[in-house]
Amino acid sequence: MQPIWWEEGKVVLIDQSKLPHRQENITCSTYQEVGDAIREMRVRGAPAIGVAAAFGFVLAAREYENLPAGLFSQKLRKVATFLSATRPTAVNLFWALRKMQMVVAEYIGDDPHIITNELEKAALKLAEEDRDNNRRIGELGLSLVCPNARILTHCNAGALATAGYGTALGVIRAAQGAGRLERVYVDETRPLLQGARLTAYELVKEGIPVTLITDNMAGYVLQQGMVDLVMVGADRIAANGDVANKIGTYSLAVLAWVNNIPFYVVAPTSSFDFQLATGAHIPIEEREAHEVTHFLGQSTAPAGVDVFNPSFDITQAEYITAIITEVGILAPPLKVGIEKLGEVVAGE
Amino acid sequence: MQPIWWEEGKVVLIDQSKLPHRQENITCSTYQEVGDAIREMRVRGAPAIGVAAAFGFVLAAREYENLPAGLFSQKLRKVATFLSATRPTAVNLFWALRKMQMVVAEYIGDDPHIITNELEKAALKLAEEDRDNNRRIGELGLSLVCPNARILTHCNAGALATAGYGTALGVIRAAQGAGRLERVYVDETRPLLQGARLTAYELVKEGIPVTLITDNMAGYVLQQGMVDLVMVGADRIAANGDVANKIGTYSLAVLAWVNNIPFYVVAPTSSFDFQLATGAHIPIEEREAHEVTHFLGQSTAPAGVDVFNPSFDITQAEYITAIITEVGILAPPLKVGIEKLGEVVAGE
Repeated sequence: MQPIWWEEGKVVLIDQSKLPHRQENITCSTYQEVGDAIREMRVRGAPAIGVAAAFGFVLAAREYENLPAGLFSQKLRKVATFLSATRPTAVNLFWALRKMQMVVAEYIGDDPHIITNELEKAALKLAEEDRDNNRRIGELGLSLVCPNARILTHCNAGALATAGYGTALGVIRAAQGAGRLERVYVDETRPLLQGARLTAYELVKEGIPVTLITDNMAGYVLQQGMVDLVMVGADRIAANGDVANKIGTYSLAVLAWVNNIPFYVVAPTSSFDFQLATGAHIPIEEREAHEVTHFLGQSTAPAGVDVFNPSFDITQAEYITAIITEVGILAPPLKVGIEKLGEVVAGE
Repeated sequence: MQPIWWEEGKVVLIDQSKLPHRQENITCSTYQEVGDAIREMRVRGAPAIGVAAAFGFVLAAREYENLPAGLFSQKLRKVATFLSATRPTAVNLFWALRKMQMVVAEYIGDDPHIITNELEKAALKLAEEDRDNNRRIGELGLSLVCPNARILTHCNAGALATAGYGTALGVIRAAQGAGRLERVYVDETRPLLQGARLTAYELVKEGIPVTLITDNMAGYVLQQGMVDLVMVGADRIAANGDVANKIGTYSLAVLAWVNNIPFYVVAPTSSFDFQLATGAHIPIEEREAHEVTHFLGQSTAPAGVDVFNPSFDITQAEYITAIITEVGILAPPLKVGIEKLGEVVAGE
C-alpha cells in the first residue's frame, strides 16, 4: 500500500480523511493543492508529508521552468516557504524541502528545465529510499520482537504514514512475516481516529489480528499484562532523544514505563532534528476546536465549551527503551547514539 | 439538576444517552423498564444507578403488593436479583438494593401495602441523603482546592451521576461558589463521551469555565503544568483503597503521580465495598464492540476488527492522594482510614 505517488507529472494521493469506508484518490496538479492536502491531513504521517512536499516542489518547478533562471530560483524559494508553513511539528517536511533546495543549489546556473528534471529524479529517489528505509527498519526491529508478540501501537505509523510499508507497522509487518506476531492492539487515536480508521484498516487488510481500543483503555491493557511491547512512530526527535509524536504518545510511554513494558520509537533518520537540543523546543501544532467537538459533522459537545486541541506531545527520552532507525537501533543513553547518528548522516 | 425522580408513583429520568443536544425524559412504570434504563446507560453514574435501583424496587413492590406476604417477599427477591444483574461494577447498585431488602426484612409479617409504603419512603430518603451527602462532600472537599484552581476531571461525576449536585463536580461547584475556581478541564471520555456530553453540559449550563480535551490529551495537559489537581468519582472502592472508576481513570492517576499533581477520588460511603480486600476482586464490565467501532452511530473502523471494551479500570491506592467522603477526608494509608469508616458506617 502506498499513500502517495507520482503519475504522469502529477501527484496522486489517497484521501486519508475518507478511509476506511471510502478509498478516493486526489490528483494534485499544483503545489498549492499539495499544500492544502497536507494542511487538511488528507495526506499525513511524518515521512509521507515529507514525500508529498518534495513532489509538490517538483510541480512548482514544472510550473516555473520556462522562467529565467533567477526568477525560477526565487519562485522556488517562495514555494518552499509556502509548503513549510503547512504543518509545524513533523521535521520530515522541512528535511525533504531542504533536500529539494540542495538540488536547486547544486545545479545553479543550469537551465531550469534541467534543474526540474533533476528535482523530479530526486523526489522519486526520496520516496523510493523511504520505502527501502522502512523495510530495513522492519528487519532491524524484528530483533526486539519476542515470539507470540502482542504489540500496542498508537495513531498510524504504517504504510499510509510513509511512502509505503511503514515504520512501527513496518516492524509489525516484519514480525508477522517471521511468524512472531500474536496480535496488535491499536488505540483509536482521537480526535481524527487514525488508529481506528487507518491502522486497523491496514492490518485487517493484511489479515493481521488487531484489537481496537479507545485511547483511555491503553493504560488498563498495559496494566493487565495484555501487551509485550509498545511501538510508535515519531514526528520529530530532538538531539537528546525526546520525541514528538501524535498526542497520547507521552501518556502511553509513561504507562508502559510504570508497568515495565518496553516502549520503542520507530523512525527513519529523516525524523531526527539533530540541531535541536531537547523536545521542549519542538513546536506543537494546535488544530481547530471543531475536531474535538465534532465527528463526521456531528456535534458531541454543548455549545459554548472551550477546547484545547494539541496534535502532538513530547515524550522525554527517559521513557524510551530504544529508537529503531534504518541505520541501527539506538539504546540509552540516546543522546550519545543520536550524536553519532548525526555524524553518519552528515557524512553521507 | 436531578437525573432521576419519583413522580406520581412512577420513576422519571433524564435520558442521558440523548444529552447534550436533546433533553428527553423517560417515565418508567415497571422495574423492568428501570432495569433496561440502567443497562442501556440512560441513567448512569454509581450513586444515580443506586437510586434508580431503589426506585425500581418500589415499582415492583407496588406491582406485587396485593399478593400474599410470602409470595410478595419471594417476588421481591427475584426483582433484587434482576436489578443486581443490570451492571456489575458500581457497588452502589447492590448497596441500594440491600437497603431496600433490609426494609422488607424489618417489616416482615406486615401487610405488603405497608411494606411498600415503607419502601417508597426509604427510596425517597436514600435519594435525599445522596444529595445531602454530595453537598457535605463539596464543603469538605473545598479544603483541598487551592485559589484559582484548575481542575481536571474525567467522565461525569456530576449532578447527572448522583441524585443531584455531584461528587467530583460537587467539589467543583463548591469551589466555584467560593470563588476559588479558575477552570475545569474535562476528558471527553470515550466511548460514550460522558465528559463531552454530560460534564461539559453541566458546567457550561452553570457558567463554569470548561475546556474540553480528548482523553489522550490529559497527559500532556498534566505534563505542561496546566492543572493543579485531578478529581474523579468512583464506582467501587475496595478495603485497601483501590478504586474502580470509568476506564481511563488509572491512566490519569499514573500521569498525575509522575507529574506530582494531587489526585483525589470523590465518593460517598455507599461507594465503598468494605468486605472486598483489593481492587483485583472488582468485576470489570465489558460492553459491546459497537460502542468502540462507532462514534455517535457512525462507523469509524473497518469491518473485521476485534474490539476490547472494558468500561472501568482499577487505580491502585498508591496513586491516590486522598478520598473525599461525606464523613471526612481519607488520607494515606487509605486502608486504615477505610477500616475506621467501615466501623462508623456499620455502627449507624
